[in-house]
Amino acid sequence: MDTSQIRKPSRAMINGFDPNRLDELPEHMQKNIRRRDQSLGPSYRLFYDTPLEIVRGKGVTLFDRDGNDYLDVYNNVPSVGHAHPRVIAAVHEQMQTLNTNTRYVQESILKYSEQLLSTFPAELGNVMFTCTGSEANDLAMRVAKYATGNQGIIVTSGAYHGLTTEVASFSPSLGIGVPLGANVRVIDPPDSLRYPLDQGSLEDHLRNQVRAAIADLHRHGIGVAAFIADSIFSSDGVFTGPAGFLGPIVEEIHAVGGLYIADEVQPGFGRTGEAWWGFQRHGIVPDIATIGKPMGNGIPVAAAIFKPELLLEFGKNIRYFNTFGGNSVAIAAAQAVLDVIREESLIENAHKVGEKIITGLKDLSQGLDQVAEVRGSGFFIGVDLVTDQSTLTPDGEAAAGIVNVLREDRILISACGAQGNVLKLRPPMPFSSNDADRLLEAMGRAFKALR
Amino acid sequence: MDTSQIRKPSRAMINGFDPNRLDELPEHMQKNIRRRDQSLGPSYRLFYDTPLEIVRGKGVTLFDRDGNDYLDVYNNVPSVGHAHPRVIAAVHEQMQTLNTNTRYVQESILKYSEQLLSTFPAELGNVMFTCTGSEANDLAMRVAKYATGNQGIIVTSGAYHGLTTEVASFSPSLGIGVPLGANVRVIDPPDSLRYPLDQGSLEDHLRNQVRAAIADLHRHGIGVAAFIADSIFSSDGVFTGPAGFLGPIVEEIHAVGGLYIADEVQPGFGRTGEAWWGFQRHGIVPDIATIGKPMGNGIPVAAAIFKPELLLEFGKNIRYFNTFGGNSVAIAAAQAVLDVIREESLIENAHKVGEKIITGLKDLSQGLDQVAEVRGSGFFIGVDLVTDQSTLTPDGEAAAGIVNVLREDRILISACGAQGNVLKLRPPMPFSSNDADRLLEAMGRAFKALR
Repeated sequence: MDTSQIRKPSRAMINGFDPNRLDELPEHMQKNIRRRDQSLGPSYRLFYDTPLEIVRGKGVTLFDRDGNDYLDVYNNVPSVGHAHPRVIAAVHEQMQTLNTNTRYVQESILKYSEQLLSTFPAELGNVMFTCTGSEANDLAMRVAKYATGNQGIIVTSGAYHGLTTEVASFSPSLGIGVPLGANVRVIDPPDSLRYPLDQGSLEDHLRNQVRAAIADLHRHGIGVAAFIADSIFSSDGVFTGPAGFLGPIVEEIHAVGGLYIADEVQPGFGRTGEAWWGFQRHGIVPDIATIGKPMGNGIPVAAAIFKPELLLEFGKNIRYFNTFGGNSVAIAAAQAVLDVIREESLIENAHKVGEKIITGLKDLSQGLDQVAEVRGSGFFIGVDLVTDQSTLTPDGEAAAGIVNVLREDRILISACGAQGNVLKLRPPMPFSSNDADRLLEAMGRAFKALR
Repeated sequence: MDTSQIRKPSRAMINGFDPNRLDELPEHMQKNIRRRDQSLGPSYRLFYDTPLEIVRGKGVTLFDRDGNDYLDVYNNVPSVGHAHPRVIAAVHEQMQTLNTNTRYVQESILKYSEQLLSTFPAELGNVMFTCTGSEANDLAMRVAKYATGNQGIIVTSGAYHGLTTEVASFSPSLGIGVPLGANVRVIDPPDSLRYPLDQGSLEDHLRNQVRAAIADLHRHGIGVAAFIADSIFSSDGVFTGPAGFLGPIVEEIHAVGGLYIADEVQPGFGRTGEAWWGFQRHGIVPDIATIGKPMGNGIPVAAAIFKPELLLEFGKNIRYFNTFGGNSVAIAAAQAVLDVIREESLIENAHKVGEKIITGLKDLSQGLDQVAEVRGSGFFIGVDLVTDQSTLTPDGEAAAGIVNVLREDRILISACGAQGNVLKLRPPMPFSSNDADRLLEAMGRAFKALR
């Protein structure tokens, strides 16, 4: 294996299939991709230079149509593992019994809500159910604007919060095709590698950034509704430390009457291996938290959690009925996920095996000029690739190359960060110590391609 | 049974539970509603003066915790019937096999997409999957704005299209708590009962209305992106005829470069008993159609269907990835629903039994001064209640009264329309001729309360 195996991806297709290479694929795959283009149109993307046709999943393993097994180090939605029997059984039983909406009284949603809320700080006392993280963030921002009477939104410059018109307007990672709202300001991500240089602490830098954003909003006559951040900065490039850096931002936001929304759609449900929710590692309490992806292990369910005082006026004046949000089957899946995380000690597992992976990757990257940093918490791990250590210039092509080399080695990962230069490792949570060994061996081979 | 049984609801609670009456309920229900308020907060509403605790559903029947059976003439989500064995089996099999996202190639989504698109006119060639009708309408409008370069939106004055920030801004039925966007104009609903009076045809009236809305948008420097309408005007009050009245509106919209979006979330999948899609009865082809509620029989899945030319630029510049949208299990449920509608001839059933209900209701309402009109198509039926035939003043209290009287008779219906005065009958589609008999008997008893 040498660097010639790392093919140069076109920028637009970094970390995804380039349609111009359709002819290089096996005939059956070509045919299905043509059918896909024909029916689904041009907005759909596929993973990898050579896309995967997946037909089965079990635990942390996916299988393609030829029976090849792939170690899944990417999918956070099947949080308790692909095809988990407890989730399957819970959904099956509920499907046979009842699947209806929240305008009837149902015991199961009450029980689940109470258990879910007990994992949050006591200040967060109400939960409202949606189907997707996008809907949860959309609702969170609607409530934030309503409760504060303000319109201004502050996000990090590589943030992704979802795909509704509103949420896309404060998701800069969608690129220039999706303009930011006139009420949106961005601050630097908490890039602990590239900051601080000689200009004070990361916390001071972030505080200054958010102060400038607030001042600019005010200069435009716009008050601050909310600062919203993914607690582990999944899209910005996985920034985990030093824990506590969010504190000063939240102080500044609260000082001008804005709210802090913790987007837990990716880090939530114990993935960070430290606590149920990513914001907890920063020692702060959000005004609103949003949760989603892993919540139902693939059954669509998401939610926004509020300080009850924020909903008093909103709830009086605005009815919110989400047809599928928190329906009987969604709740059954969510309850099973909650139970399995506890019973299988998956948070502890994320902590233990996550540490092993992080330590292993740090060892592997010793002396590699292109691996600038290995960082992470539990099962959310980033590997920051650069052209060289002296300039720390992000190297998205190297990352895309490694993602594709690993895919050929039947290990599924992805990349993130504004330049696509941060390898993103984010396996289902039953990922074992043996799985970590297989991953580390393959990463070792892939890193060799960088030398 | 007499009119004293029809309790006067508070306006805010029309057709829903009034929390001020909590003390009147059985103790167990009081306790669960208190738990609900505590966990879910004040934005959630419950059906009926006396809410229902539902524990089981089968076919067209729901069961409460005391084992009482209720005839479901309301729920359109369990379109092929509560707990349909084919849907249960399809979901169960898929859950055991694989549940993953659209960035891997999967045969099932291609097959489903091709079959779904074959039910649409040939011009509508691409489908994009979301989780909810709200997300589908949000995406449809995003594409409409992108493709036209315009921002203006025209809707009917009682329309409901969903709950994202964007979609709520063009859903006037949400009430004054949710302001319309500055780019939104409303026109009268196609109220065939109250119009025409002496001023020309309904079509002419609607054409004039939409011309005025366009002119007003232009006067404000806003071009027309789209006219969006629920093809059966579910929320406006169920307006089905005379078929064809949408044609002139669409002509006017197209003439100024705008698009016509058919919101099929409620009328779609054959509910009107005439065709797969509600717009077909008007002999027109939309530029975009959105579908949702009945699509997966309760498993969250929805979609927007496009003329492919609208997606060319959008798809090139904007990636759209909906994590759960069109995932393996959602597609399995949707495929089963499509198959069952065909195999059980449910569209034909909606036509036949729907006709029987409409005819029966017309007979029952002979000589009733408060029943101004029975209208509908297939299994989407409205009964327009008024204070008297001479003024045609909408009577929302009478409608709420009947909804609650029927609930006591174990028949579940609802009401719609700007004044809440139109009874809305919308059963699961296996609703049989015998079910219609039970419904009509109960409606007869309820109508007596009006005399």
